[in-house]
Amino acid sequence: MGLHRVVEPAGVLPQAAWRLDAAREIAPNEVRIRVERLNLDAASFRQLSDKHGGDGEKVRAEVLDIISTRGKMQNPVTGSGGMLIGTVEEAGRRSPLGLRPGDRVATLVSLTLTPLTVTDGLARWDGRGEQVPCDGWAILFARSIAAVLPADEDPQLSLAVLDVCGAPALTARVVSRYVEDRRRAGDGRPVTVAVVGGAGKSGSLSLAAARRAGATRTVGVVPVVAERDALVAAGLADEVALADARDPVALSSAVTTALGVPADVTVVCVDVPGCEHGAILATADGGTVIFFSMATSFAAAALGAEGLAADVTMLVGNGYVPGHAELALELLRSEPGVRGLFAARLAAD
Amino acid sequence: MGLHRVVEPAGVLPQAAWRLDAAREIAPNEVRIRVERLNLDAASFRQLSDKHGGDGEKVRAEVLDIISTRGKMQNPVTGSGGMLIGTVEEAGRRSPLGLRPGDRVATLVSLTLTPLTVTDGLARWDGRGEQVPCDGWAILFARSIAAVLPADEDPQLSLAVLDVCGAPALTARVVSRYVEDRRRAGDGRPVTVAVVGGAGKSGSLSLAAARRAGATRTVGVVPVVAERDALVAAGLADEVALADARDPVALSSAVTTALGVPADVTVVCVDVPGCEHGAILATADGGTVIFFSMATSFAAAALGAEGLAADVTMLVGNGYVPGHAELALELLRSEPGVRGLFAARLAAD
Repeated sequence: MGLHRVVEPAGVLPQAAWRLDAAREIAPNEVRIRVERLNLDAASFRQLSDKHGGDGEKVRAEVLDIISTRGKMQNPVTGSGGMLIGTVEEAGRRSPLGLRPGDRVATLVSLTLTPLTVTDGLARWDGRGEQVPCDGWAILFARSIAAVLPADEDPQLSLAVLDVCGAPALTARVVSRYVEDRRRAGDGRPVTVAVVGGAGKSGSLSLAAARRAGATRTVGVVPVVAERDALVAAGLADEVALADARDPVALSSAVTTALGVPADVTVVCVDVPGCEHGAILATADGGTVIFFSMATSFAAAALGAEGLAADVTMLVGNGYVPGHAELALELLRSEPGVRGLFAARLAAD
Repeated sequence: MGLHRVVEPAGVLPQAAWRLDAAREIAPNEVRIRVERLNLDAASFRQLSDKHGGDGEKVRAEVLDIISTRGKMQNPVTGSGGMLIGTVEEAGRRSPLGLRPGDRVATLVSLTLTPLTVTDGLARWDGRGEQVPCDGWAILFARSIAAVLPADEDPQLSLAVLDVCGAPALTARVVSRYVEDRRRAGDGRPVTVAVVGGAGKSGSLSLAAARRAGATRTVGVVPVVAERDALVAAGLADEVALADARDPVALSSAVTTALGVPADVTVVCVDVPGCEHGAILATADGGTVIFFSMATSFAAAALGAEGLAADVTMLVGNGYVPGHAELALELLRSEPGVRGLFAARLAAD
């Protein structure tokens, strides 16, 4: 897990470290990547751009300074990083990642824990966007995750899918469990799934994954008419409902009306605060809420369920599930609705 | 869920409301309690006491003002409330709570969502402690939870147990699931459980509940020698280990050494920030972490598991599980080790 790369403070994990050792030479269980582009986390880029009033030169200088000071690209204010793409340059003989020199990969672990050295001064970047052309190297540990980019896909499309690939994988796992439990118990009730933010990146993939995993009936909840129309056209959900996810009564009514019953599994994919109570209310007794939004408040979820006497299981959305990259790329390949929503989103950016 | 008691802002749930209607007359699905004591949340009392430099008169005046202004006891700074005990005065004919006039009860939903009117000006309280003798009434909704206090137990002991009764109930449910899954699969591996903060209130109950649910081997992790000795004497865990839960490497080493393997289920019961990564590292692939600490950071848990490529299920500790009060009081009755730890803690307060 890269403890030997932690310079200070000693004893913490790489993500919590102030400074990493980004030396070029790799240990037998490491992999070195020749970097071609960094994708900065949106919150991080926004903070830097706002701080410097949109002055690209100053943004570039600060990013360079962060990387050279910390040995990784972790915004000290937002704490966030991003991901990178590049090509495997050298794989240690004891690396378990299965990568070979020449593989074109995207890292699926955050830049916040990835040792990084930049060698071109970011000369090809104007400091005005999250995509940073870059030459240099990055180090992957034994427990890092990298996905080989499909040669026949637009890399930007693959990256956008890989960025959120934990959501469909965990959704599929949880839904499968309900399907299997009902089957085993001879319980013929439908398995119902609600995805809040169903037209977004993680939301649309989660809807496709839920159906693939055997959900009987699904609803995607969206906040505006344009998203409703897009999700209906994509055909990824049995029902599409309009509701403000921050309004608990509106959200739970929309879900229950669309499904006929509360959801067995509710997946929260909208990055706005205050969706916890609505998600809990929309979920059946014995159901599960999966929170993928980083705006989720642990206390609001815990106290909300208790205050509502709601017997629901609440999961912290873990971005890592074995096989997550493969599942997400497979959904992109086989579901035209997923591809359509992602392509439209990339075109709009 | 009490929406009709929300005065402002309209449309939110009682917990999120600024002001509730605490009128004495009950709806057919409500219950009115004659209040005898409030137990203020520790964080709330500390904030009020610090603000007024320990001046009990001023603390009392502010609590009275909060209750009369908001129609509930919710500290506007900490957002927290507490619980109350009292006697059922009137139960509406459509209340599902099964309470009868004369029952002595503790509320298991927070004061932050409980309509409350005080009639004695808190005249018997000196403003210097969390226990507030009080005359007045409180309203329970259809989805509220109240536990009848056992007549043969010290009410303080019962209250202390009920205050954390969600933890053992959820621990038992999760551990049972692993036991059942292994049995069904013919998988003879032991089911291992680690409880971080095992000598505390929720921790000791969780250890007892894990063993009751069929855990093969348990470890309680504690930060200091005095707690280690107390937990060893209580006999609630197979192993007791000393470690700082904020140090990921130390915590995971302690757990793995004590159990021989990482834990299938790790329960976090210590109210200090920064325990997420250690708990994740201490947990086996395919295992589950249950976070009961309100100091848990959602982002640290989500990003930590992803950064460590840890295939663990992470649960937000829900304080409500059906049957939670009964299970916790039963553990108090049948486990001398639980009783001993609780009694010692009450004596020390």
